[in-house]
Amino acid sequence: MHDQNTKYLLGIDGGGTKCKAIITNMRGVILGTGISGPANPLRGLTLSQNSILAATQQALLDASLAPEEITKLVAGIGLAGINMPHLMQQLKRWKHPFKQAWFTTDMHIACLGAHQGQDGAIIISGTGSSAIAVVEGKQHLLGGHGFLLGDQGSGAWLGLAAIRVVLKSMDGLAPETCLTQLVKTKLATDDLLLVLDKVSQAEPAFFADFAPLVFQAADSGDHVALNLVHNAADYIQTLTEQLLSFQPPGISLIGGLAKPLSPWLSSKCQSQLSQPVSPPEIGAILFAQQQLTAENTK
Amino acid sequence: MHDQNTKYLLGIDGGGTKCKAIITNMRGVILGTGISGPANPLRGLTLSQNSILAATQQALLDASLAPEEITKLVAGIGLAGINMPHLMQQLKRWKHPFKQAWFTTDMHIACLGAHQGQDGAIIISGTGSSAIAVVEGKQHLLGGHGFLLGDQGSGAWLGLAAIRVVLKSMDGLAPETCLTQLVKTKLATDDLLLVLDKVSQAEPAFFADFAPLVFQAADSGDHVALNLVHNAADYIQTLTEQLLSFQPPGISLIGGLAKPLSPWLSSKCQSQLSQPVSPPEIGAILFAQQQLTAENTK
Repeated sequence: MHDQNTKYLLGIDGGGTKCKAIITNMRGVILGTGISGPANPLRGLTLSQNSILAATQQALLDASLAPEEITKLVAGIGLAGINMPHLMQQLKRWKHPFKQAWFTTDMHIACLGAHQGQDGAIIISGTGSSAIAVVEGKQHLLGGHGFLLGDQGSGAWLGLAAIRVVLKSMDGLAPETCLTQLVKTKLATDDLLLVLDKVSQAEPAFFADFAPLVFQAADSGDHVALNLVHNAADYIQTLTEQLLSFQPPGISLIGGLAKPLSPWLSSKCQSQLSQPVSPPEIGAILFAQQQLTAENTK
Repeated sequence: MHDQNTKYLLGIDGGGTKCKAIITNMRGVILGTGISGPANPLRGLTLSQNSILAATQQALLDASLAPEEITKLVAGIGLAGINMPHLMQQLKRWKHPFKQAWFTTDMHIACLGAHQGQDGAIIISGTGSSAIAVVEGKQHLLGGHGFLLGDQGSGAWLGLAAIRVVLKSMDGLAPETCLTQLVKTKLATDDLLLVLDKVSQAEPAFFADFAPLVFQAADSGDHVALNLVHNAADYIQTLTEQLLSFQPPGISLIGGLAKPLSPWLSSKCQSQLSQPVSPPEIGAILFAQQQLTAENTK
């Protein structure tokens, strides 16, 4: 039987497509994990809260803990978008079932995970792109803003650029190249109206699915694809330079595009980057531990 | 008193922000004009039909004709988006009050207006951008596709690009320039979150409002603005070259950006362009006359 005073740590990484939960004991030993649907509060606070609870219940089950033990969890919760003050205010009013809960951005917990709770910086290039430096208690967020206004060098940005090139080529305004062929094969049509029908209302994740084709075409020497990949690499290099101005002890490049983009970065930039130590959900555990420690030393 | 058999011509130019109507006698002499709200059927067929009827009633009033005389109007109607087969089918089923009505694209009537009903081609650069060549009864549409996927060289495209540059500069990822200063002054804030709040859900027309600042900055030698304006001019030149492949007797550049863009085009491209003769609503009258003639010679 568990002691009445037993507590556990819960780490939550709530993103736009999925929510990951991890439960550890107070020393950080992993007991169980869970996963559920989208948890980005920009898409609705209730959806976000439900996804957090669903992933947590899975993690409790995986850890052989009863559902009621949710009240013993000390939670560190990282969510996209809660650097917006009104979302943070709403979340702080949530009557959550946890023993305690602290909230921060998904970028913050990813950075804590990458640098094992120490100061550092990360660049994420996945469906979107953004960066953060965490130095001496201060967070410096850079980039992001969605693929219409920003997110340069991300999967959605590369895929969207590739589809724009294909539409131009279908109008006879750009040459057919290896890239346009690859994209049209994946779209499974070369009828302009059908292509427009597929892409007009598409989500970022739809476009990000085309990013691997840009790298494939660049590898075979396609000039349009090379231009896009160089542009993406330039942006990652600019982010790296700007992060260095905050003097973080280390910078990691993470996300789905980290691996394909790395070879295209300058050797100087590659030497400025280090491998991340742990994933974001572990960063959320570290965040909870830091908050507990801060509270106990008040 | 009007003869029972009297007929009039109605020309409709239905765009995304406004709908223009013009009524002429059967010889094309203008009797009255009207104007109403958005008529792009992509935003709803009922809205489009209501705008057409509202502009028509205004034109009847302006022509000193009774509202009931709507049944004597032979209408040529140009609408955005009805190159999409399903929209054209829905419009053809409309139980409209006119004596007769023919539908075509807004691009087609603009081209007929610019070339006085003869073969020719036009490039529109306004909020969006697109082009059409009308040669020997065939229409060749190029470009368009909205500012996320295309519309290069348009006002919305230039304005969006300017705002992307401003967001990068606010993140320290691009230098402050004349352009970023002009845009921030118009935005009336240099708080990143407030800017994002203003632009995240904005419509193309919002972005197009910033296009004049790009030309202003380019005139003063701003390198980022010069790059954008040159890119826009390149695209207009590419459209011109592609239109020439259809061998139209003439090509006109029309829309709100025609005037500011012209000086940036190569002298070769400028020499390939001619001034438009009449506006799109007159093109719609010419379209109705052509359809009547075709019907009478069947």
